[in-house]
Amino acid sequence: MKGRILGIDPGLQSTGFGVVEVDGRGLAYVASGTIRTKEAAQSDLPGRLKIIFEGVREVIATYAPDCASVEIVFVNVNPQSTLLLGQARGAALASLVAGGLPVAEYTALQLKKAVVGHGHAKKHQVQEMVARLLQLPGLPGKDAADALGLAITHAHAGASLAAMARVTALAPRTHAQYRRGRTY
Amino acid sequence: MKGRILGIDPGLQSTGFGVVEVDGRGLAYVASGTIRTKEAAQSDLPGRLKIIFEGVREVIATYAPDCASVEIVFVNVNPQSTLLLGQARGAALASLVAGGLPVAEYTALQLKKAVVGHGHAKKHQVQEMVARLLQLPGLPGKDAADALGLAITHAHAGASLAAMARVTALAPRTHAQYRRGRTY
Repeated sequence: MKGRILGIDPGLQSTGFGVVEVDGRGLAYVASGTIRTKEAAQSDLPGRLKIIFEGVREVIATYAPDCASVEIVFVNVNPQSTLLLGQARGAALASLVAGGLPVAEYTALQLKKAVVGHGHAKKHQVQEMVARLLQLPGLPGKDAADALGLAITHAHAGASLAAMARVTALAPRTHAQYRRGRTY
Repeated sequence: MKGRILGIDPGLQSTGFGVVEVDGRGLAYVASGTIRTKEAAQSDLPGRLKIIFEGVREVIATYAPDCASVEIVFVNVNPQSTLLLGQARGAALASLVAGGLPVAEYTALQLKKAVVGHGHAKKHQVQEMVARLLQLPGLPGKDAADALGLAITHAHAGASLAAMARVTALAPRTHAQYRRGRTY
């Protein structure tokens, strides 16, 4: 896998983004940050969704990623919060697909497993591992760390797929044999 | 109030739209329909949100509305459905604000009151009243009827605001007196 991955951690008040470059040697940090709608003068819901949509569009225009990796959000204890989070995620996804990016989706569990190694990792452990993996001089913010973590998760998933593809290319009949349930 | 109003009834499988023209004499039907994602080959969530986003954008490009009126959705008994509906609404709203349209929001209750006259109206009553108010030759579909109803609701609200503005212009001190809680 080669190219730039844009990770997005969607939220109504704060949407994290992180861009990571993947080449033959490994991962490199490109950019990260947060799209905030809290302090916005346009504080109604459509205004906030506009800030998210345009913020993501600007990130795409600036860093020209090849694909996106977005956190799968879950239902909240508060149904109203679920509805608001859903709308924020919908605006972010709309901006990604409008920008022509293929979108992969990962759960927080997959993110933690890929970045820290287990699913029980705390927020600060994700921040520390992201900083280490990308050789950052300091800890990224929580939303930006999650976004960078999502990009790393997708890079790892892509690398695994690529590794599988290589194995398949080397021994093309192995899979066919397995699928057919008999050997030649 | 004058101009074209685009009503949107958002949903993940089916998003209704309806365009109504308001002039000095009343309301006129322009167009209505449904953006469907059910039969789509791109049936994953980002693919469906893309269809909604681009469908709304196409409606805007085709009918050039001046503003939009969108139904306020509520939490569902099923939290997962709430999350999906939220994302559909987020994509629709993103398309509207990306298209530069000011967005008004109304509840289903406000829609029924504005169109039928009371909040207990059934779906088919909304369809019948929309057909009568816009002099349609037949009943519009349910999603399209709701969308046209939202446009009508906004036209009525706009007309009321305009009427209030006229009253205020005629007697500008009335409001000031009321606010200050005393008379001069």
